[in-house]
Amino acid sequence: MTKSLPFLLVDISKCEQNIAFMANKASKANVLLRPHFKTHQSLAVGELFRKYGIQQITVSSVAMAEYFSSGGWGDITIAFPFVPQMAARICTLARNIELNVIFSSPQNLLASIGSIDAKLGAFIEVDVGQGRTGVAVENTRDIALMINLIASNRNVTFKGFLTHAGNSYGVKGKDAVLKVHTNALNQLAKLRSFWANQFPNLIISYGDTPTCSLADEFWGLNEIRPGNFVFYDVMQSLIGSCHLSQVAVALICPVVDVSPNLQKVVVHGGAVHLSKEKVEIDGNDCYGVVCRFDGVTWSNPVPNALVSALSQEHGIISYTNGALDDVKPGDLLAILPVHSCLAVDCMGQMFDAHGNKYDVLPKNAR
Amino acid sequence: MTKSLPFLLVDISKCEQNIAFMANKASKANVLLRPHFKTHQSLAVGELFRKYGIQQITVSSVAMAEYFSSGGWGDITIAFPFVPQMAARICTLARNIELNVIFSSPQNLLASIGSIDAKLGAFIEVDVGQGRTGVAVENTRDIALMINLIASNRNVTFKGFLTHAGNSYGVKGKDAVLKVHTNALNQLAKLRSFWANQFPNLIISYGDTPTCSLADEFWGLNEIRPGNFVFYDVMQSLIGSCHLSQVAVALICPVVDVSPNLQKVVVHGGAVHLSKEKVEIDGNDCYGVVCRFDGVTWSNPVPNALVSALSQEHGIISYTNGALDDVKPGDLLAILPVHSCLAVDCMGQMFDAHGNKYDVLPKNAR
Repeated sequence: MTKSLPFLLVDISKCEQNIAFMANKASKANVLLRPHFKTHQSLAVGELFRKYGIQQITVSSVAMAEYFSSGGWGDITIAFPFVPQMAARICTLARNIELNVIFSSPQNLLASIGSIDAKLGAFIEVDVGQGRTGVAVENTRDIALMINLIASNRNVTFKGFLTHAGNSYGVKGKDAVLKVHTNALNQLAKLRSFWANQFPNLIISYGDTPTCSLADEFWGLNEIRPGNFVFYDVMQSLIGSCHLSQVAVALICPVVDVSPNLQKVVVHGGAVHLSKEKVEIDGNDCYGVVCRFDGVTWSNPVPNALVSALSQEHGIISYTNGALDDVKPGDLLAILPVHSCLAVDCMGQMFDAHGNKYDVLPKNAR
Repeated sequence: MTKSLPFLLVDISKCEQNIAFMANKASKANVLLRPHFKTHQSLAVGELFRKYGIQQITVSSVAMAEYFSSGGWGDITIAFPFVPQMAARICTLARNIELNVIFSSPQNLLASIGSIDAKLGAFIEVDVGQGRTGVAVENTRDIALMINLIASNRNVTFKGFLTHAGNSYGVKGKDAVLKVHTNALNQLAKLRSFWANQFPNLIISYGDTPTCSLADEFWGLNEIRPGNFVFYDVMQSLIGSCHLSQVAVALICPVVDVSPNLQKVVVHGGAVHLSKEKVEIDGNDCYGVVCRFDGVTWSNPVPNALVSALSQEHGIISYTNGALDDVKPGDLLAILPVHSCLAVDCMGQMFDAHGNKYDVLPKNAR
């Protein structure tokens, strides 16, 4: 193995199963799958989606839109509210591809609408419970104002409403996620019934990995935009969106030192590799789940072991019941990341089991 | 401003004051300052150190050593325990520059010592209280074993002992940091007195930003290796290592949306920009401290405002007492990072007020 350590290994087979699962679900539910590519940020991983018929994608920044456009993606929604400083680059890009943007409030819209001089599709972001950005679904006054403001610029076409039911990240278990989901669908149904007469081609765009993984019903929606499902991660497994066996990326780390007395293993794999995203498992801080690695694939998680602390380059694995007593410096372990989107962003590249490299949008091209 | 937003702005004048402060302190205390370059990971920022006479540096990975070597740095300590997989690259590099490595235990040493076929300086890492890696100072048996193992490879020269008093990060205030410091110095003095007869040229290498910022006495030490001080950050200010006015980097973020009713501002500046490093301020989660930005420099922190949550691209600022009621979408705010090392690593490049770019070791070159 000539690539340097630690590296991010992607299991392409799991990845394709995850894509197939979501593509089939969308197809059965008769909604468009417009996957969010912010998780992998990779042209090479993006290619895997094509065989499932994906041609329309979601991204979270202008730089990401430019990057995927350069790889032949011709229909992109930037699902991050428009900021006036983005206008020039967005309009340049919109001259070459179908590009949709979102506006999150009248104030947000007012700041930019005047500076758009290229054809753009516009969604109004609505909030169905996350409370991050977006207009309340029942705020008809602001929505009407935004629709009028959009109409004031002939380059911009109102397409519909977009939401992220990100409150699904705050709950655990299928029942709780489906409750968030049903609540969101009910709100969106009211929104559609209010506006559908005036806009018969209204698009309702929805998406987050927990609800899209666990729900089968997507009534009243036109498209879903989950992203994380391509790789999944420890956080998703705790929400209940996936099983840990579906996680498709792992950080391959060399063991640096061992302390069987303290039941501790130190690996080269820290905050600059995994990110400092943290979850709690059985009351313990967890920065990653530990698996064995045979040089090609990783094992099921090692019971009674967790990445319990991270510094910039060091990862500390704590274990009990002698789980890793046999490990020695130079051995390789695989760490399933808590949040795969951030681990990919930290690592800046991935490799498959054959050593093929999967590029990620470089930091200095953003 | 043609660079894209958000971007990491570095205040070169503060940066140089921080370097001058530490260089003067080291000079007065008659210890070598061998700064840790993992904070900036930047050849351009590295150049700023030269005018203070710095020629010897510390890094935390082989890739970083290669990168700084390519920029003319000819005396580097890799202050991360040796891993067997690093041997080939380390030996290649050691043929061109003075290179020191560290070993953290007999097991760690045994795994690699046989594969070193180039001239290397070796430090034994000792633990003075952090409990991350390193041999206990009083563990004379293991230390003697390690010294003998090092001597078994004629390419490797035992240089001395290296430690990171990282337990200083767990305390707050000058008195508490100095207590950690004095305790470390006492342990290291015993270590020196035990081994100095046998190794009259023994080097004791010590370093972490809190103790090096707050202490003036470094008796018994030969070199100090703080790193973070070049930029400082919110975490260091809470420990007491610096004042927030000394923080030399800020993330310049455009305001995306505002909710004066909720006293909330959303900026483009998320976990992929600031990292998810978090501190607590007055019982509230804090991912960054908010300042105004006039296009060139940032203000003192805005009272009653904090970055209270991050998602991948979004930063949520919560405020009270109307502190940011006047802000509107498109305005720029400056966010002081909780942990500057991670923010730099996330951003992958920096800019000064004149728009000059400061490159950072690219992720895909690691």
